Amino acid sequence: MNRRTFARNAAAALIAVRAGSALSAAEPTDALTPLRTKPLNIGILIFPRMDQIDFTGPFAVLSRLPESALHVIAHERGPVRDHKGLILTPDTTLADAPPFDVLQIPGGPGQEALMEDEAVLSLIRKQNESGRVIFSVCTGALLCGAAGILRGRRATTHWAAFDLLRYFGATPIDSRVVVDGNLVSAAGVTAGIDGALRLASLVRSKQVAQEIQLDIQYAPEPPFDAGNPKHAPRDVVTAVSTRYRPLTDARRLTAQKVAARLGVPALP
Amino acid sequence: MNRRTFARNAAAALIAVRAGSALSAAEPTDALTPLRTKPLNIGILIFPRMDQIDFTGPFAVLSRLPESALHVIAHERGPVRDHKGLILTPDTTLADAPPFDVLQIPGGPGQEALMEDEAVLSLIRKQNESGRVIFSVCTGALLCGAAGILRGRRATTHWAAFDLLRYFGATPIDSRVVVDGNLVSAAGVTAGIDGALRLASLVRSKQVAQEIQLDIQYAPEPPFDAGNPKHAPRDVVTAVSTRYRPLTDARRLTAQKVAARLGVPALP
Repeated sequence: MNRRTFARNAAAALIAVRAGSALSAAEPTDALTPLRTKPLNIGILIFPRMDQIDFTGPFAVLSRLPESALHVIAHERGPVRDHKGLILTPDTTLADAPPFDVLQIPGGPGQEALMEDEAVLSLIRKQNESGRVIFSVCTGALLCGAAGILRGRRATTHWAAFDLLRYFGATPIDSRVVVDGNLVSAAGVTAGIDGALRLASLVRSKQVAQEIQLDIQYAPEPPFDAGNPKHAPRDVVTAVSTRYRPLTDARRLTAQKVAARLGVPALP
Repeated sequence: MNRRTFARNAAAALIAVRAGSALSAAEPTDALTPLRTKPLNIGILIFPRMDQIDFTGPFAVLSRLPESALHVIAHERGPVRDHKGLILTPDTTLADAPPFDVLQIPGGPGQEALMEDEAVLSLIRKQNESGRVIFSVCTGALLCGAAGILRGRRATTHWAAFDLLRYFGATPIDSRVVVDGNLVSAAGVTAGIDGALRLASLVRSKQVAQEIQLDIQYAPEPPFDAGNPKHAPRDVVTAVSTRYRPLTDARRLTAQKVAARLGVPALP
């Protein structure tokens, strides 16, 4: 942690204490534990060209939480297609959405088109200001960044976008799941399942999370050790990184614009 | 393997050899390797009260296969809801579906309602007769059983339904993914992701499967060791098994009826 980040975190903690919120750096789950005893309204945003499993993976977990209602929200009623063509349909719209205890923001290539979408950014901003939970999956973290809520906070995202987190004033943490106050972020795509189980344990209990894990038989056995760029064979990393380059370049340009707007100091 | 099963397997192998098919017990992937060099039509069945992630997990993998088209099929056009309320919409109907190189059959509680559905069962039966690939996920295996295609074959399914496989004349194999000729079966729910990656390596290549695995950052880190009943804490297994009991009892009655219809000898 550099001095600037430390100062920012310390200021955030101070504001949190003043506001009576539970955003304490020392006890990062304080924002979540009060939810354990209340019914939960959970909202998940969907949008065109998202990655469906950023949404459906966590849905499998969160839809099994006791005493919870799950709302799938989008700009408009009517179906959207994920970037591989899967048809996804919301239950409600941004305008009609109830207040959420947990708001999930998935990612995927379509996130780029929402980086200046005020309806989406203000949904995220208001959720954060209320101190209630934000759960970003994959490049959903970039949307949180564009909303300005990553400043001075620890977060993660898909490996191909990981370095971009700093443009939003965040401290990138190379973990599968990162909990920072009311912000839970999961790394790329399938990390949303791990993130949702972690979240389940925080807003309900370890027992509830374990029962869900057993129910969905989540004892993964990936056939190869290729799920992250540190372990995957070199030529596999090169092939996938090359395919990502145009998207990563576009995301970097957008992130630089956001950095200027938020007043995040230029990166070296 | 008892003598009856052995005799059945031997007969099946003999028929396979006679028919020039690739259903050889010695080389279980022979049915899949010829697909490596051709474009693939992949069909995935959806139905009401299925478990969406049996479908969407593998979709994340299979939709990334090069030179492939993915078709989401259902009885009727128009949306269905999974057993937790997620809205799923097909691209085409059973009646309009093209021939498939790979047919994926997901599971979930709604599988029970299809156990005597001739349109679904005959789709599975014809796919099997053609020697092309069937990929069952979770209790999709029970539908394959009702179609009569598990007789004398090794297969797996969700842990809570595992013992039922024998009613269909199958040999239950306690593995996350089982490959038997043109039949690939995955265990419960999230095992579909492991199964799809295995399938990707068989119908394309190890390199392709690894690239997909890296793309979807599938380096899982379950927060607990509770994903299968052998490792989960005792009280977690009891709680989940108890909730499953009415469904498992109903599935057993149905499986016994199928066994009688197929002439599978009564179990001890």
